[in-house]
Amino acid sequence: MAVKRLGAQTIKFLNPPAIISTGSIVGPKEGQGPLADYFDAIIQDDLYGQDSWEMAESKLIREAVTKAVDKAELKIADIEFMFGGDLLNQLMSSSFAARDLQVPFLGLYGACSTMTESLSMAAMMIDGGFADRVVAATSSHFSSAERQFRFPLELGNQRALTASWTVTGSGAAILSHSKGGPFVTHATIGKIIDYGIIDANNMGAAMAPAAADTICTHFDDTGLQPSDYDLIITGDLGVYGKEIAVDLLNKKGYDAAANFSDCGIEIFDQKKQDTHAGGSGCGCSAVVFCGYLYQEMQLKNIRRLLLVSTGALFSPTSSQQGESIPSIAHAVTIEI
Amino acid sequence: MAVKRLGAQTIKFLNPPAIISTGSIVGPKEGQGPLADYFDAIIQDDLYGQDSWEMAESKLIREAVTKAVDKAELKIADIEFMFGGDLLNQLMSSSFAARDLQVPFLGLYGACSTMTESLSMAAMMIDGGFADRVVAATSSHFSSAERQFRFPLELGNQRALTASWTVTGSGAAILSHSKGGPFVTHATIGKIIDYGIIDANNMGAAMAPAAADTICTHFDDTGLQPSDYDLIITGDLGVYGKEIAVDLLNKKGYDAAANFSDCGIEIFDQKKQDTHAGGSGCGCSAVVFCGYLYQEMQLKNIRRLLLVSTGALFSPTSSQQGESIPSIAHAVTIEI
Repeated sequence: MAVKRLGAQTIKFLNPPAIISTGSIVGPKEGQGPLADYFDAIIQDDLYGQDSWEMAESKLIREAVTKAVDKAELKIADIEFMFGGDLLNQLMSSSFAARDLQVPFLGLYGACSTMTESLSMAAMMIDGGFADRVVAATSSHFSSAERQFRFPLELGNQRALTASWTVTGSGAAILSHSKGGPFVTHATIGKIIDYGIIDANNMGAAMAPAAADTICTHFDDTGLQPSDYDLIITGDLGVYGKEIAVDLLNKKGYDAAANFSDCGIEIFDQKKQDTHAGGSGCGCSAVVFCGYLYQEMQLKNIRRLLLVSTGALFSPTSSQQGESIPSIAHAVTIEI
Repeated sequence: MAVKRLGAQTIKFLNPPAIISTGSIVGPKEGQGPLADYFDAIIQDDLYGQDSWEMAESKLIREAVTKAVDKAELKIADIEFMFGGDLLNQLMSSSFAARDLQVPFLGLYGACSTMTESLSMAAMMIDGGFADRVVAATSSHFSSAERQFRFPLELGNQRALTASWTVTGSGAAILSHSKGGPFVTHATIGKIIDYGIIDANNMGAAMAPAAADTICTHFDDTGLQPSDYDLIITGDLGVYGKEIAVDLLNKKGYDAAANFSDCGIEIFDQKKQDTHAGGSGCGCSAVVFCGYLYQEMQLKNIRRLLLVSTGALFSPTSSQQGESIPSIAHAVTIEI
């Protein structure tokens, strides 16, 4: 049998599934950022015609999936399975979106790592021969995340400089067998890494060791080097977390500084938009990949990409109980 | 290529993964119920030596996985991937357990349907050739669930007769290629079904239509009949939900009453233990399967089983916003 596993944590797809289409939709603030032109839609009101931010977020997923389906010239009924998740308790936005879409649904929770978790699972399902059209989608919403994880917006709390700004948006990718790429060729599934960081306003520092561990394992497992990639991009480490991750990789013998970025850094103009460390949330790497990076790959400006969504698996309960922040990162290789 | 898909929602495993070992551990109340003798361990104090119920629940998962690994005469390091989930916000108990176990982790959220979601994903990973030893584990804890979803226990609230009692416990199953069964032969992935029930104290009624939909789809997809199974067992519909599910199946032309049960009904003596509609929670179908049903299959008392874990995907936020309860059920066929 041909080799489908490399090393301890990496899956190699022998018939790499193609990402045949993506959809991306973002909120007003993301629509004023440097990547605005890459998104399929920018909403002007973060309630998006709904009664709550949570249901607005749910509508974002529905729309992202619908856009991806439309662009692939398919119907929703052509999608066999949906992998999805978000940051809300009990996956409120994904669950209600999957209810409305009526696609068989597999809910995932990996905090902000969920986009690469869902791409990995969708690719496995297709390469394994279990389905031929699967959608991977995630979302986040600034206001629903603030309400759930932090303070009422009305309180007008000051934000720490290491804090990130949850992206309002959703990205969806349809995976299928196709001769045209980009293709998902590898997935490296992360372990949970916890360096004892307890500051929920510094998630970049909590997640950086997990990102570095997964990226390092990916190189060890595959024999690839940082220079084999046009871009290695983490999910939402932000300005400070990115520095830590690059340092940790250096200490492990991998010099990735030259082609390393972070979706949270790319999506906002940190200085003009006052977003401090950068963007975060399940939607961050989802819209940056499904909008910006996917189009750059179609234009052949990026030929091989390592997308490493990063998740801080804390909850308000665990923080209140004084626990540290367990973090995780999953990496997928996407190639044209 | 051989057929790996049947109908719209069912996966057929061509090289069915075996469940080579299980572990189960329950709380004091479950240890006084009719299935007590089937569990590997019964804890006497629901704090289990920890500082919080949430961390106690996390320890339950760790112990269930450890027991399954020990019984298979393996080491934790032999387990390649872990699929896990629980009811807590941000999967607090699974995340901390996976941190301590240091197994590459894929977090799932399907509310109480998570056990069959994780069995389906683990089976897919093995049948697809991506791994050879994968653990599927879920947990729930009465006190952590009450705190999160309902009221402080100190309030001593009355419970509705349709309310269920969240099971304290965790079940873990190790899947691998092996000549000895039981084997996971099919997985039917559910759609989200919502009949508009808004009463979070009657989750059985909310979930019954989802259970019936998945079971009916399973029969339609596979051509199997209820009588082909020794037992069809739902996750946690409870007394009232089970009746509704059987009725709905009848209306769809499947008479399943003769061999239909529910894990939530089996785990407690409803009358003596004052558990009203029955047990519920991710841990309910997990411990009933990993304890009771797995042993009955090894004894050949059950030769073909349809395990249908059922999830109510509401959150306190969605309930407070007046939304109905979207529900889901995933079914797996397990055969010797």
